[in-house]
Amino acid sequence: MQNRKGFTLWFTGLSGAGKTTLAGVLEREMRARGLAVEVLDGDEIRTNLSKGLGFSKEDRDTNIRRIGYVCRLLSRNHVAAISAAISPYREARDEVRRLIEADGAVFVEVYVKCPIEVLAERDVKGLYKKALAGELTGFTGVSDPYEEPLAAEVVIESNREPVEDSVSKILRELERRRLVRAGEADGHSTAVRRALDAEDLGLLTDIPALA
Amino acid sequence: MQNRKGFTLWFTGLSGAGKTTLAGVLEREMRARGLAVEVLDGDEIRTNLSKGLGFSKEDRDTNIRRIGYVCRLLSRNHVAAISAAISPYREARDEVRRLIEADGAVFVEVYVKCPIEVLAERDVKGLYKKALAGELTGFTGVSDPYEEPLAAEVVIESNREPVEDSVSKILRELERRRLVRAGEADGHSTAVRRALDAEDLGLLTDIPALA
Repeated sequence: MQNRKGFTLWFTGLSGAGKTTLAGVLEREMRARGLAVEVLDGDEIRTNLSKGLGFSKEDRDTNIRRIGYVCRLLSRNHVAAISAAISPYREARDEVRRLIEADGAVFVEVYVKCPIEVLAERDVKGLYKKALAGELTGFTGVSDPYEEPLAAEVVIESNREPVEDSVSKILRELERRRLVRAGEADGHSTAVRRALDAEDLGLLTDIPALA
Repeated sequence: MQNRKGFTLWFTGLSGAGKTTLAGVLEREMRARGLAVEVLDGDEIRTNLSKGLGFSKEDRDTNIRRIGYVCRLLSRNHVAAISAAISPYREARDEVRRLIEADGAVFVEVYVKCPIEVLAERDVKGLYKKALAGELTGFTGVSDPYEEPLAAEVVIESNREPVEDSVSKILRELERRRLVRAGEADGHSTAVRRALDAEDLGLLTDIPALA
């Protein structure tokens, strides 16, 4: 399995906005289309790479830089990396973008937008209520800053659109940039798509019958 | 570019024994043979993933677990990961081995052995003198433990063998396990090797002329 080009799909947005859900669905969809994929979930990274870090700006930035470093190693080796951490600070996200692009890989930022009132109503983990009651300090969007992206490649309004629509929107952007091959709807047979993949791998020119 | 199988080449040994040198030469050799490779050097990781960690047993183990986590993500996506950190504790190394093997990737441990007297004489960074004089606490091999591997796949005696011999020894082990293709000496033409690679990629069976 070989991806056309390595890339990082970087979700950003408040807790509960739907980053992890979208990342999970896209992971499956991308695998089904033959890509090598890794999801770097905020919680998993805090366990494996950032234990001991807190939630100050400095610690949050360090956490994002670490996720970015791993995304970079994966992307430049043609793996699709998906990050699903809150990543509240614009400068840290832009730094990751610069490093990944400097390696010749692609950075696609997806802002998962959802109004705080809706999040407070859903409140899956019961954290918004606590934060809004002033019982939780350093809670992003309530008692800690969240800096919206200024030019995200995709903006998802998770309170207005069903998950399937958001997934399609993201996939269309990835297809447009030729980062994932188009789904069945693109008219190519499996055989032709395999041949196109072989061409991407530079193999066909070495095989006389297909040169 | 697609590796046959993902694997981690894990160097362990005292400071100055030659881990980074060997990792650098092997990286170039493996790239020349068509592999996707990443080197995770101890110093680079301490900057990118482990800033703030010290040199207690706990912190050293955390550092090794982080390197191991990244090696694991790379290896299971068919990238060859090379770690060149001291990694003094056996249990931490064995834990990384278990996790990588659990993903179906391969872990190859290379012990770069060199007597402390030789290291103290070379003393490139001037650290052994200080440590032996009692001016440096927590210096591996002098004032901090180093646990030798009990069953490393390759043992290098860097005070007795030239670098080229050590490199050959490691490459032979990787070839024997079919992790890297054999060098020019194996008798295959470039064309045949390309065809073999295509076969590994499962492409040939789809191409009638070569099926």
